[in-house]
Amino acid sequence: MCELLGMSANVPTDICFSFTGLMERGGKTGPHADGWGIVFYEGAAVREFRDSTPSCHSEIAQLVSHYPIKSCNVISHIRQANSGAICLENTHPFVRELWGRQWTFAHNGQLKGVKRLPLGCYRPVGTTDSEHAFCWLLGQLRERFPKPPRRPQTLWREIRRLCEQLGAMGVFNMLFCDARQLYCYCSTRLCWLTRKAPFSMAELKDAELSVDFRNETTPGDVVTVIATSPLTENEQWNPMKAGEFRVFRDGVLLL
Amino acid sequence: MCELLGMSANVPTDICFSFTGLMERGGKTGPHADGWGIVFYEGAAVREFRDSTPSCHSEIAQLVSHYPIKSCNVISHIRQANSGAICLENTHPFVRELWGRQWTFAHNGQLKGVKRLPLGCYRPVGTTDSEHAFCWLLGQLRERFPKPPRRPQTLWREIRRLCEQLGAMGVFNMLFCDARQLYCYCSTRLCWLTRKAPFSMAELKDAELSVDFRNETTPGDVVTVIATSPLTENEQWNPMKAGEFRVFRDGVLLL
Repeated sequence: MCELLGMSANVPTDICFSFTGLMERGGKTGPHADGWGIVFYEGAAVREFRDSTPSCHSEIAQLVSHYPIKSCNVISHIRQANSGAICLENTHPFVRELWGRQWTFAHNGQLKGVKRLPLGCYRPVGTTDSEHAFCWLLGQLRERFPKPPRRPQTLWREIRRLCEQLGAMGVFNMLFCDARQLYCYCSTRLCWLTRKAPFSMAELKDAELSVDFRNETTPGDVVTVIATSPLTENEQWNPMKAGEFRVFRDGVLLL
Repeated sequence: MCELLGMSANVPTDICFSFTGLMERGGKTGPHADGWGIVFYEGAAVREFRDSTPSCHSEIAQLVSHYPIKSCNVISHIRQANSGAICLENTHPFVRELWGRQWTFAHNGQLKGVKRLPLGCYRPVGTTDSEHAFCWLLGQLRERFPKPPRRPQTLWREIRRLCEQLGAMGVFNMLFCDARQLYCYCSTRLCWLTRKAPFSMAELKDAELSVDFRNETTPGDVVTVIATSPLTENEQWNPMKAGEFRVFRDGVLLL
């Protein structure tokens, strides 16, 4: 199993606190020692950091933990390899462009026979099931919508349908983002929480670290964090059910 | 004008020395203060760092200068904006996938009317002439070769032809890489040198820094560096002529 972390916020927010908790699971409090990656959206662009060394020992992970890169959309992943060798090209999240937008994808689980799904425009660089699923998903979207559909709901419905198709092939917990919406699909394990005013304290499960969000936020901030399992001790996380699909934008649950 | 830096090597080599020289030109010894980026190939994957702040003040540039990421193919760029706002999505190098390979592109110059060139599969995320030219170039390659041509020379010839077409539209100094070959096109300013045994000392032009490559290399190493203008004082750089196209692999000049 791998671990996923996502964030959707209405103001550029740093993810140092949650990322610190996640990184501990990369070889220290958790067994996910086969690489890690994080993608931050900055406007339409993405900033990517990835490493095939355990996150708890990675110098680049140290930089990311301490350097407050602020973003409204973030996807991160730590890997415990089950399909594909341990190397940079097999390290999530994966990024491709569609309609002049950067799409980011991270997956936890295994998909039986996914490599038999026919690919169109997008081809995997590495050898994981996950990247194949991502290439198929984007290829399907491109084929169905040569231009982005006018109503965002049309796009959400299609993404949900494709996720269900992948979900039927095995375990498919997924985070997916196009710089606007953050899409989540839960097959077995995913949960989320929204932080907004009145803010309070939060304590990490995986490291001795707490943060008082009252000192870090302004009253209008809305920040949603999505993770494989709860990252904090003292907050109420919403578990997702099998087959549940969620769309967040600006920290707000849209669907 | 922007500045380009490329490296092709037969063993994974760090680019700290040359990168340090280049970064000084990003707002200190040179006026290229509108962002910088660097792409390292690690196997088939790329590792990307980019910033829209001047490289001479960038914390991430500091990390890259000191952290010896070793690679056989590197492309870097510092920007003095002339087309497109100063923001991350307009920061070179640009990366896209074709045939399951990551392609990287960086450009210095201006191209008149390039945005009238029709695009296929690839769409720009930002607003620069350069990214439009890159999307057009890759789209043309994909259209001409749905699969990679069997003879590498067939591909080189087509890339050269497309570069000449872009070169006819203005100033087009370019570095382009597919994890295997490094392609260079010179329209006005580009030069290169190959370091191999017997190695010697090199002194940077833009910073008080010298390196004795005898201590950093093994006898079989071959490392070619390509730059807008010579980065060192005491070495013989080969200037490229207008319209010259070069292909390097493993540090060796192939064409």
